[in-house]
Amino acid sequence: MFLPHATRTLLRRVSSGARRAAPFSSSSSSSSSSSSLVDNPNLADLAGNDYLYHIGLNPAQQDLRTLFGDVKFVCLGGSVNRMAEFAETVADELGEHESISVPFGMRPSPIGKTDRYSMFKVGPVLISSHGMGQPSMSILLHELAKLLHYAGADDPAFIRLGTSGGLGVKPGTVVVTTEGFNGMLGNTYDLPVNGKMVSRPSRMSADLVADVLRAVETRPETSDLKHFKDVVAGGTMAADCFYEGQGRLDGAICDYEEGDKLEFLQRAHDAGVRNIEMESLQFGAFAHRLGIRATACCVTLLNRLEGDQVRAFFGRHYSYCMGGVR
Amino acid sequence: MFLPHATRTLLRRVSSGARRAAPFSSSSSSSSSSSSLVDNPNLADLAGNDYLYHIGLNPAQQDLRTLFGDVKFVCLGGSVNRMAEFAETVADELGEHESISVPFGMRPSPIGKTDRYSMFKVGPVLISSHGMGQPSMSILLHELAKLLHYAGADDPAFIRLGTSGGLGVKPGTVVVTTEGFNGMLGNTYDLPVNGKMVSRPSRMSADLVADVLRAVETRPETSDLKHFKDVVAGGTMAADCFYEGQGRLDGAICDYEEGDKLEFLQRAHDAGVRNIEMESLQFGAFAHRLGIRATACCVTLLNRLEGDQVRAFFGRHYSYCMGGVR
Repeated sequence: MFLPHATRTLLRRVSSGARRAAPFSSSSSSSSSSSSLVDNPNLADLAGNDYLYHIGLNPAQQDLRTLFGDVKFVCLGGSVNRMAEFAETVADELGEHESISVPFGMRPSPIGKTDRYSMFKVGPVLISSHGMGQPSMSILLHELAKLLHYAGADDPAFIRLGTSGGLGVKPGTVVVTTEGFNGMLGNTYDLPVNGKMVSRPSRMSADLVADVLRAVETRPETSDLKHFKDVVAGGTMAADCFYEGQGRLDGAICDYEEGDKLEFLQRAHDAGVRNIEMESLQFGAFAHRLGIRATACCVTLLNRLEGDQVRAFFGRHYSYCMGGVR
Repeated sequence: MFLPHATRTLLRRVSSGARRAAPFSSSSSSSSSSSSLVDNPNLADLAGNDYLYHIGLNPAQQDLRTLFGDVKFVCLGGSVNRMAEFAETVADELGEHESISVPFGMRPSPIGKTDRYSMFKVGPVLISSHGMGQPSMSILLHELAKLLHYAGADDPAFIRLGTSGGLGVKPGTVVVTTEGFNGMLGNTYDLPVNGKMVSRPSRMSADLVADVLRAVETRPETSDLKHFKDVVAGGTMAADCFYEGQGRLDGAICDYEEGDKLEFLQRAHDAGVRNIEMESLQFGAFAHRLGIRATACCVTLLNRLEGDQVRAFFGRHYSYCMGGVR
């Protein structure tokens, strides 16, 4: 419902590459043949009977190859409503093209279980909400990667589109994530596995980031974004907390002063962080571990160097969301 | 929709304490006057204009004291559908009582924004979904604590009701959480705050745990649970990942062997862990930091010492969910 227009426009361009003779990412996808959607020898032992618990699909019960084998783009975002709206937008765009044609009277409808996530498919674009935070994102990524592995999908690009707090960029700017940062300003996602800490570097696909930036530069539809320099590449810090973990002063608990926050946010900015959200560190680590092409395109709702509360949403920002970039 | 019956029965007893002359938790609530819902001096500066972004309420726009001042129980669970069903159940139970009476033709309906969480209120019971994972839980807890602080609610008890993987307990057992464990089997929730790691002990309210166990022992409605020893108190490990973080062998990535998993799960069991889910460590740390009475009551869907896949759901477990305890 509130998908920022700038992000929507950008992603629509990326997704609609699918209907062109030369797909948007063709230049780089050929170079990523080393990617794999899974790395787990045990999956062969499950003999295709692998119930994907949170999305409610099972290769033993559905013909995933027929249903999902054509997926080229996986577009993920936090909220159900936004992703439902995005599915409508993609259907409007791709529905015009005869090879994907959406029959009159048909609209996107959720796939599988909807208790945890809401997933949609429009031609080669798989769309899903991922909830909030890295653990929720993680569950979805594991199950989508297995789903598309069983489906035999060919090197799909994963793109998160979301909202974030900006760092030293004007509100409304879209940050295309190059790498993830943790709350200590390192570039690893650290997860205890069987009692041992496993650290994985969080890096997005340089090819995909370049593709997105090239689209902004070259497509007439995104001339507004280009003109206003509304899209930047940069680091994204993912926190496990919206309040204390992002240095906000307005949580239920606050054991620090504004000076501590500003000193930290400035240090994060100096390290290359351009926005803060709650998923991209894990997302980049998961994708990099498997060689999946991935990046995040998040609009910034405010400049955290100037304040904490997301008030712009109901003022100036509203125009980004519902109408035009400005 | 799939709220396990055992948990539902137990929580219904806890919640329905609200309609009795002597509330369920009266024995212990008098001793917890040191509790507070928030600890942040900055909130006074917001002068009541504190937009609770993810739940969509604001003390400047709604009379929170009138709407939420009577809340005594906060019941939280992962999924929207389960909590909507739980709200219906509570309405059925409490609707009979004249002091809370639910007018004919009225049913629980979501409060505030529903894009991230779904929240319901039935008399003194506030009910909300919290999504999956500690970050999603954390956002909700910060905003609910502020909401109830502004509302002037008096020492409400917070109870998470959910599903989990059991450890050395038979499937269907409800674990009432005494303390949270992290993935390294420590009892602290560790969160980077302004670039420094903050560690907080994760402990549930001993009084509330005792109240829940006492209810099982003494209430005729829970004689089934008592008879089958279906409720135990114990430690709960919260992981930030459903697959690798819980030692499952069936994720998209698996860099370890079954022996590593079983060795770890046994070690966790020896340390006092009786179930594994994805929220209670942060929940216990947040509540303990503020002195909020809290615990989690989670049904176990499987015994992780025996397997990984949640298959029981469609077999024997179905009876826990939809009909009776067995």
